[in-house]
Amino acid sequence: MQELSVEHLLGIKYLNPNDIDVIFKTADHFKEVINRPIKKVPSLRDITIANLFFENSTRTKLSFELAEKRLSADVINFSAGQSSVKKGETLIDTVNNILSMKVDIVVMRHGNVGAGVFLSKHVNAKIINAGDGTHEHPTQALLDSYSIREKLGTVKGKKIVIVGDILHSRVALSNIFALKLQGAEVKVCGPTTLIPKYISSLGVEVETNLKKALEWCDVANVLRVQHERMDIKYFPSTREYTQLFGINQEILDNLGKKIVIMHPGPINRGVEITSDVADSSESIILNQVENGVAVRMAVIYLLAQQIKR
Amino acid sequence: MQELSVEHLLGIKYLNPNDIDVIFKTADHFKEVINRPIKKVPSLRDITIANLFFENSTRTKLSFELAEKRLSADVINFSAGQSSVKKGETLIDTVNNILSMKVDIVVMRHGNVGAGVFLSKHVNAKIINAGDGTHEHPTQALLDSYSIREKLGTVKGKKIVIVGDILHSRVALSNIFALKLQGAEVKVCGPTTLIPKYISSLGVEVETNLKKALEWCDVANVLRVQHERMDIKYFPSTREYTQLFGINQEILDNLGKKIVIMHPGPINRGVEITSDVADSSESIILNQVENGVAVRMAVIYLLAQQIKR
Amino acid sequence: MQELSVEHLLGIKYLNPNDIDVIFKTADHFKEVINRPIKKVPSLRDITIANLFFENSTRTKLSFELAEKRLSADVINFSAGQSSVKKGETLIDTVNNILSMKVDIVVMRHGNVGAGVFLSKHVNAKIINAGDGTHEHPTQALLDSYSIREKLGTVKGKKIVIVGDILHSRVALSNIFALKLQGAEVKVCGPTTLIPKYISSLGVEVETNLKKALEWCDVANVLRVQHERMDIKYFPSTREYTQLFGINQEILDNLGKKIVIMHPGPINRGVEITSDVADSSESIILNQVENGVAVRMAVIYLLAQQIKR
Repeated sequence: MQELSVEHLLGIKYLNPNDIDVIFKTADHFKEVINRPIKKVPSLRDITIANLFFENSTRTKLSFELAEKRLSADVINFSAGQSSVKKGETLIDTVNNILSMKVDIVVMRHGNVGAGVFLSKHVNAKIINAGDGTHEHPTQALLDSYSIREKLGTVKGKKIVIVGDILHSRVALSNIFALKLQGAEVKVCGPTTLIPKYISSLGVEVETNLKKALEWCDVANVLRVQHERMDIKYFPSTREYTQLFGINQEILDNLGKKIVIMHPGPINRGVEITSDVADSSESIILNQVENGVAVRMAVIYLLAQQIKR
Repeated sequence: MQELSVEHLLGIKYLNPNDIDVIFKTADHFKEVINRPIKKVPSLRDITIANLFFENSTRTKLSFELAEKRLSADVINFSAGQSSVKKGETLIDTVNNILSMKVDIVVMRHGNVGAGVFLSKHVNAKIINAGDGTHEHPTQALLDSYSIREKLGTVKGKKIVIVGDILHSRVALSNIFALKLQGAEVKVCGPTTLIPKYISSLGVEVETNLKKALEWCDVANVLRVQHERMDIKYFPSTREYTQLFGINQEILDNLGKKIVIMHPGPINRGVEITSDVADSSESIILNQVENGVAVRMAVIYLLAQQIKR
Repeated sequence: MQELSVEHLLGIKYLNPNDIDVIFKTADHFKEVINRPIKKVPSLRDITIANLFFENSTRTKLSFELAEKRLSADVINFSAGQSSVKKGETLIDTVNNILSMKVDIVVMRHGNVGAGVFLSKHVNAKIINAGDGTHEHPTQALLDSYSIREKLGTVKGKKIVIVGDILHSRVALSNIFALKLQGAEVKVCGPTTLIPKYISSLGVEVETNLKKALEWCDVANVLRVQHERMDIKYFPSTREYTQLFGINQEILDNLGKKIVIMHPGPINRGVEITSDVADSSESIILNQVENGVAVRMAVIYLLAQQIKR
């Protein structure tokens, strides 16, 4: 089966294992394309894509834009700051207006959980969720799994620990869904105040001791510390966080084995991860960024085929 | 005659009936183009267009950008926020600098009445007015008339009422010029404090009773309430405005006939118009948005032909 | 020799006279291109360029963007305001992330002196310095010299005075390097508080009397007054500056000869230069803007050839 079972990419929780397989095989092709001298294909000349970012974003937005340009799609960008949203227009009105201009695919980042799902029920376009509140960030999870598969051959059976603020992280939640779907073992590691209570219902174990978590795993996916959240009283301070959950080379050297280091960026060097670890040969952080373009090309391409059919 | 009588699109008041006819016939062609699978034509590969927006705008800017891309023009965007304007540069200097980079057409939105006319006298490029203060917004009026023509077959002889804050609305003024030019009957309806004193000199009647206005008309073009203006003392409050001039389904049901509902957007749902009215089968609000791209393509294309000749 | 001796354009001080010659001859070709009806060449279809502007800029950014589009490169734009920089990411991380998306050339403006040099040592891409703090702005100096060569046939042996705040001007420093390299004579003219102490070591004379400076020169390159700097106590006030160093038509008429007037823009009309002077036939200010696109096309094209080879 070379087709997706879904009509939108709203979250990993709506995908089945074959979907992930189809996306990864398509991404393999596009990864080869973006490493050619001419990094473009004319596939989507007849597709118009709107990037609607109601929250700030650098890397995700750039990555989507590049993916769209590499596919030769027509691209229009819309950021909340410049927009009618300030004037009190509803989300559906904003999007319907854009769609009336004949847009085929909407890539949306929005602060509200479920914004993509809501939209997909009310407008006639393919929706790709580029992050909805603290809920899902499916393309990030796909590129993360794709990068593990590239480094270790497969995701199935691998042991992955996600380190950091799990409670507020859409990267963590989408990763958990994606990794479990592919048959990986997943643990989370972080301050107990930042671990959601429902975590065990996802088939995920909690390990609050960083050293034990790292000894167990093949891959550590280290989340960014959100400084702005660290101000809130019951959280650990940034300094305490670094002492308890910061990963440095000494910790890794004492493991007696090599583990793969991942980070969705942007990195706080010296906070959740030290520079020597981020830049080490075990780190695949920049591969994640590169793979992001290929994986997003794959998702866009596969959804666009449904329109063309 | 398949040519425009003007060298710029500065306002509807400079056009003659044949100009509008030429624009609409050209737009008919482009409307067909943007509904094809490949929504582009290579017509303006040799034309560079600068979008200069000295005031915020979402839909107008997106609509122009899409129109330009559909025509394969090279596009550069310039927003006041990022610009030398903050550094105290004059408008002519800013624009001349941009023109020295070999720009053929300037699409400009500016807060000052007459900014486009002023510019057209001082720089060597085609100027398209995308809104100048409270004065004119000619492409909005053209797409509005085009949408009426599409819905009712013709504009000539139709009865159109424009409802809202006429005094501060460039949409209203350009619409009045365009509708009268095509032989429509026009009334305005709104609080007397928001009707300009010169309105009768334009051949337009005032009807302050909404029900009577709607009973009279074939089409109601409902303007957006500018909340920020409603703070000023002698205006009605937003709540009072909605009670007196807000259009809801009950009012329409009691008319005993169907009328076409238009709105330039963005809509304040529940203020000047209720959701059921905005989304009803009589509403052509989203058609207006779609037609905006085709009409703007037509205007740009026709002016560009004058350069090429 | 039709090749550059450098791998990046970090500053004029790294260039030799042949480099400038190669850039100018290449720019001659592109100037011809951008004056054709179709102003584009397909040369760089396989090159992706990232414009990283960590400081605001209008004309430099637009000029680079147009140069890149005229060469058919793929372009991605990144401004600090929208970016992860706010989140405390390091410069190298930001740039490495962008490079992982397969970017070949980075055009960077940054507030810190030496940001481009630093970057060129740490990332695998061609770097073009579009202004680093008060240090260098090499493409501005190249387009200035190119414009003198166009107007006067050659730069060699010509007498150029740079008027204004020399101390804080990257335009002044890059111009001094470029002009000396081509065998011009250079003086600077401005308040003694705004002349750097090391100026004589660059082979440049100081002339604090504007009239004498203008009597001596063939070309006056007039810098913009930075109002924000004029607030600082020991500087002259803007009014005093205009009285002592402002150039008006009367001063020029009394010279008994014609001199070429240049300005990098944006102009403060009536402060460092009056309108009649800026708009006079001796002014080549708009030629500078036009030549900026051609010169930047040349620099980008020449560096891109090194990648392709």
